[in-house]
Amino acid sequence: MSQDSHRGDTPPPPGAAPSFHSMWKDLHPLGRHSGGGYRRYAWTPADAECRAWFAEQARARGLAVEVDRNGNQWAWHGDPAAGNALVTGSHLDSVPDGGAYDGPLGVLSAFAAYDELRARGTGFTRPFAIVNFADEEGARFGVACVGSRLASGTLTREAAHALRDADGIALPQAMEAAGHDPAALGADPERLSRIGAFVELHIEQGRALAGTPHPVGVASAIWPHGRWRFDFHGEANHAGTTRLEDRHDPMLTYANTVLAARKKARLAGALATFGKVAVEPNGVNAIPSLVSGWLDSRAPDEETLAGVVAEIERAAAERGGRDGVGVRVTRESATPLVEFDHALRDTLAARLGGAPVLPTGAGHDAGILSASVPTAMLYVRNPTGISHSPAESAGEDDCAAGVAALADVLEGLL
Amino acid sequence: MSQDSHRGDTPPPPGAAPSFHSMWKDLHPLGRHSGGGYRRYAWTPADAECRAWFAEQARARGLAVEVDRNGNQWAWHGDPAAGNALVTGSHLDSVPDGGAYDGPLGVLSAFAAYDELRARGTGFTRPFAIVNFADEEGARFGVACVGSRLASGTLTREAAHALRDADGIALPQAMEAAGHDPAALGADPERLSRIGAFVELHIEQGRALAGTPHPVGVASAIWPHGRWRFDFHGEANHAGTTRLEDRHDPMLTYANTVLAARKKARLAGALATFGKVAVEPNGVNAIPSLVSGWLDSRAPDEETLAGVVAEIERAAAERGGRDGVGVRVTRESATPLVEFDHALRDTLAARLGGAPVLPTGAGHDAGILSASVPTAMLYVRNPTGISHSPAESAGEDDCAAGVAALADVLEGLL
Repeated sequence: MSQDSHRGDTPPPPGAAPSFHSMWKDLHPLGRHSGGGYRRYAWTPADAECRAWFAEQARARGLAVEVDRNGNQWAWHGDPAAGNALVTGSHLDSVPDGGAYDGPLGVLSAFAAYDELRARGTGFTRPFAIVNFADEEGARFGVACVGSRLASGTLTREAAHALRDADGIALPQAMEAAGHDPAALGADPERLSRIGAFVELHIEQGRALAGTPHPVGVASAIWPHGRWRFDFHGEANHAGTTRLEDRHDPMLTYANTVLAARKKARLAGALATFGKVAVEPNGVNAIPSLVSGWLDSRAPDEETLAGVVAEIERAAAERGGRDGVGVRVTRESATPLVEFDHALRDTLAARLGGAPVLPTGAGHDAGILSASVPTAMLYVRNPTGISHSPAESAGEDDCAAGVAALADVLEGLL
Repeated sequence: MSQDSHRGDTPPPPGAAPSFHSMWKDLHPLGRHSGGGYRRYAWTPADAECRAWFAEQARARGLAVEVDRNGNQWAWHGDPAAGNALVTGSHLDSVPDGGAYDGPLGVLSAFAAYDELRARGTGFTRPFAIVNFADEEGARFGVACVGSRLASGTLTREAAHALRDADGIALPQAMEAAGHDPAALGADPERLSRIGAFVELHIEQGRALAGTPHPVGVASAIWPHGRWRFDFHGEANHAGTTRLEDRHDPMLTYANTVLAARKKARLAGALATFGKVAVEPNGVNAIPSLVSGWLDSRAPDEETLAGVVAEIERAAAERGGRDGVGVRVTRESATPLVEFDHALRDTLAARLGGAPVLPTGAGHDAGILSASVPTAMLYVRNPTGISHSPAESAGEDDCAAGVAALADVLEGLL
């Protein structure tokens, strides 16, 4: 279903579209906070500006703009209904105070690679699209990859309706306020069945390429990962008058759990992070009644992940018993191991002259789509490995190499 | 200086004023949050409602209402300018999600004790006032006892002007928005010199009276205490892709410091609490760039307090070194040991038939005033010791005993 459609029958001549630099310059200030980080949260005004930028880029190239029932944006060359489409793209939203590359580099490189293919005179033997998936980071509603999860059915319509942001605004309400009709939210198998292959380019989130001569790598797999909310229930009391032995201080249990999580993850070769905390009442002179900490954990395989989380839960319960603090753990999301399409992966690596093949701990829309569509990913080298931070960056030459690699790969699939 | 004055020359007859129960009922809903706790922060609409309640109680008794240059409210019987006044009262603001008794019990008991003295036909041989000190808890601007500190000069006008709430609103701006002219903020020695004695009644914040037959105790001293902000500076990064050994995760340093604080305090016979935390960017899948934790610490003497805080700082710096995290500690407030006026204390204890004499870790306006005015405090028994929580409470009989004790003590001083 198309909510905003424009027929792309007469594309402008190659070379007329905005350059990589010009696109970057236009996108750069949108949703940028004074501290330098990005706050492009789903269905906010900053997100709307990014989406307008996407539509403008599509129109400048004569591509037909379409918004699907779950709010994902598509820019089409050729007839979507013909099937076996080749699709590339990523997302434009950000984590809180995120960097400029995570997401946007994939969308921007997609437009630039399209321009490169047109300049090369490549024939488009199958429909082609560039996509901007909605709400990939989950910064606002707490669930990542909402647009692709809804389309693929791994996030149900009912579950999506229950999502609330920190101000209590429901996802459909937020979509509606941003001008998108949420009436048809939900699985979209017909749309996915039209896709023959999906390739997502992304800045590397780590330093595996940093020590190699390769500016571009190919993804092998995404580690299974999940988010768990640990609620530590204590008893609010006066910090200046309550004897230590009379306290039920949940901050102690939380602190011990943070350190236990790090240790258990290290021993298992996994990752575990507490990056988000909420405290009630959060007063300087009040022992908290409640500390909530969110655990993000990932591991090479699902058994290891389950084992690490179980050990962290055990450590929390044990310490909670000593502190007189109740511990309740809620799994907020879980994403199984993703292995990308082997044939596609090998084709890409070969086409790129033996590019390194790497696993990652980061989730992506490509990982969600891989369950229903042959999917691959390209990573662009990240010299510091820093990600989800304003300090995230990739070299100019490496970005250009990413565009060239994406064009090569797409050309091979057209 | 009087901003809202009403001459109390013709007080209504004894017995016409609202009863303790009626006052309690009127005050009870003001600033009460749906969770049951109070959010009566200085210069907010909830605070304005409490202040209007105070003015109404004064007017119902024919007492002259006055607001001093620092926003403290006074209700006068007799001429303030005559000097050697006897003053009682407390505060009406609350900590975040605080209880109903901390502060209000002292103000309410003051009005009830005044009614009792009038019913007894006690002669008022000196000016008498009931006071509601502004912003005792410091919930909004981070500094406790702002009204009494300003009056006594321990918080300077310049420092008060620099105070900001979480939304960046400055204290004078907040006062002005609440209808109080902040032009004359600052030390008010002339006003304090008119006070001959100050007695504050307060719910006990602890369980020292709970095991005794005494519903009321007398204060001996307030432990020295202070607040320190610990800023842990790490490096924001992706929780799913950054190897543990590449991290600079300030949450680990914070967690270790929380546990170290508890241990150092226990060994020294002191108190140490981290009850407030702020995390940047506070995202589920982001290693934080900054964790700020506020330490509240108190001890029987200043040397012990300084030693405990120094040990916590050392532990934080040591762990920060291992985590690659910078630690910066800022002392936000410090209150020295307060010993209440010995003669007044002994007079009160004797008048109350040998009431227990107790120290406390909690700061009070009485502690601030004690540097310039002979000051005493009465504590009303708290069966659970819970304080700064909606569960804070005192028995009905004990509250009545508190009013009677305050009336007895005031009668003895009139």
